[in-house]
Amino acid sequence: MTVATAGEFGLISRVTARLGAASPLVQLGPGDDAALVAAPDGRVVASTDVLVEGRHFRRDWSAARDIGHRAAAANLADIAAMGARPTALLVALCTPASLEIAWAEELADGLAAEAGKVGAVVVGGDTSASPTLTVAVTALGTLEGREPLVRSGARPGDVVAVCGRIGYAAAGYTILSRGFRSPKLLVEAHRRPQVPYAAGPAGALLGATSMIDVSDGLLADLGHVATASGVGIDLRRSAFVVPEQMRDAATALGVDPYGWILAGGDDHALAATFPSSVRLPDEWRIVGEVLPASLFTAGDGVTVDGRRYTGGAPGWDHFR
Amino acid sequence: MTVATAGEFGLISRVTARLGAASPLVQLGPGDDAALVAAPDGRVVASTDVLVEGRHFRRDWSAARDIGHRAAAANLADIAAMGARPTALLVALCTPASLEIAWAEELADGLAAEAGKVGAVVVGGDTSASPTLTVAVTALGTLEGREPLVRSGARPGDVVAVCGRIGYAAAGYTILSRGFRSPKLLVEAHRRPQVPYAAGPAGALLGATSMIDVSDGLLADLGHVATASGVGIDLRRSAFVVPEQMRDAATALGVDPYGWILAGGDDHALAATFPSSVRLPDEWRIVGEVLPASLFTAGDGVTVDGRRYTGGAPGWDHFR
Repeated sequence: MTVATAGEFGLISRVTARLGAASPLVQLGPGDDAALVAAPDGRVVASTDVLVEGRHFRRDWSAARDIGHRAAAANLADIAAMGARPTALLVALCTPASLEIAWAEELADGLAAEAGKVGAVVVGGDTSASPTLTVAVTALGTLEGREPLVRSGARPGDVVAVCGRIGYAAAGYTILSRGFRSPKLLVEAHRRPQVPYAAGPAGALLGATSMIDVSDGLLADLGHVATASGVGIDLRRSAFVVPEQMRDAATALGVDPYGWILAGGDDHALAATFPSSVRLPDEWRIVGEVLPASLFTAGDGVTVDGRRYTGGAPGWDHFR
Repeated sequence: MTVATAGEFGLISRVTARLGAASPLVQLGPGDDAALVAAPDGRVVASTDVLVEGRHFRRDWSAARDIGHRAAAANLADIAAMGARPTALLVALCTPASLEIAWAEELADGLAAEAGKVGAVVVGGDTSASPTLTVAVTALGTLEGREPLVRSGARPGDVVAVCGRIGYAAAGYTILSRGFRSPKLLVEAHRRPQVPYAAGPAGALLGATSMIDVSDGLLADLGHVATASGVGIDLRRSAFVVPEQMRDAATALGVDPYGWILAGGDDHALAATFPSSVRLPDEWRIVGEVLPASLFTAGDGVTVDGRRYTGGAPGWDHFR
């Protein structure tokens, strides 16, 4: 059955039925003009990320459930990167009327399952027909009384550290775009990022001075931190370990794996700066340091081994 | 200059520069991974509505600023219909790369201006290239300690009342779709709904038992109230005044103006039920009454003068 056959309200009721999970923080879920979600410390963290078919995903590369996981992850990672805990998602689904209802149901399953990893639930949304399949998600979260981890807090002398996979999703994207379907580790990383959500709040408690989720590419995203903080950042290439399957895939495809690591987006790793005195647990890998801005004469404020990166664009631009 | 020329970050910085207004409730606005908005009573109301070009708006019918007003209004009305006060908007803009930056800037102006009517501000968002121009908005709001006005609270014996224009936007849509551009009152109502936002919280204080914003059509939306409340609703056709310009337009176009009033969407009037003992201020027009569900044997639970409405579809289905 297509969404045209089910109609708008048939689609909504079938998708809503898949969301299932309750949360003690959700006082009103789907089905009214708006949802009502607890904000226990009197503040709510909120972020919106949109995924567009052909630009962020392809239905022949990813199952509906994967796309649901990925759409949720992109948003939940933004909440985590503030040092917050996600509580709820709202989802706007725009779809051709010819879409199979089962696809929308599986998308909802993926959204709910990814949200469930952090105890968040889908509390509302909207649907419309559109020639372009589009999933726009808004995530809400709570700081639990903490201060937000912003991009502007990095200070010279801080270390730069990364938590989570980096370069995997970009490698998977390249592999899929060349017509291959393996290695599975990398292809699956494109389909469903594995985001270290808990490291966001934990990093805040460790004393992180800034944090960002790596969605566009590490150099581009740390460039935002450098700009917002008025500092420079230098990364050490040797600090990044190229996993064996990534190295093999890069060799087979004739590309530089550091391009994936330094400029590849969509892993939603967390990148943060910490005072150098902080003892970081193993999940955080120190990859560079924060320098005074005056050492940088041009560019986006991020260098690799003291030099400007020349391996290509530092990250994604969603209009180019 | 097009958004392709400006690039994703050029677009974001130019649009963000138009948002301007501050709010004492916004602790972090655009520019970080997420925004931070106060939720003074420890709860946040949240709703998402999406507008798709060709389905919800046409660029040759409405200016960018109008579409911004309308996208904001559709979402802010949902917050008001919970009896809440809007605080913030998040906006995901998907657009062809050929879009003029000025169009996006004027859209932002419209969004900010409509939000400003209720003291809300745009706090974040996302952009992506897409073949289909799409504006997905999420609105946040505060109940200021009140209970939410849900759809399920209508009780037999309550009166049904409407606040705000009704049928105007649908009339404007019909006029535009027939190739006309006047009367201006109705065409402008399609472009920019005039939503009685304050009547939401005020209605809650008056003792409303349920409330909904009329986005799909009065019969369809009251049908949701009837279903959620387990009641029937009977409207009195004579309670609706057909304004002169609407009557003239209907005559000229050969249509029944009550079709616009009873089944036309997009005015974002507020419809509510109140105990019959409540003395309603003039802004609320009593248009019907709530009946026990057992009097209804079929249909969506809403009748007009005791009979099932036969003038056409009771409202919009965004897939049909």
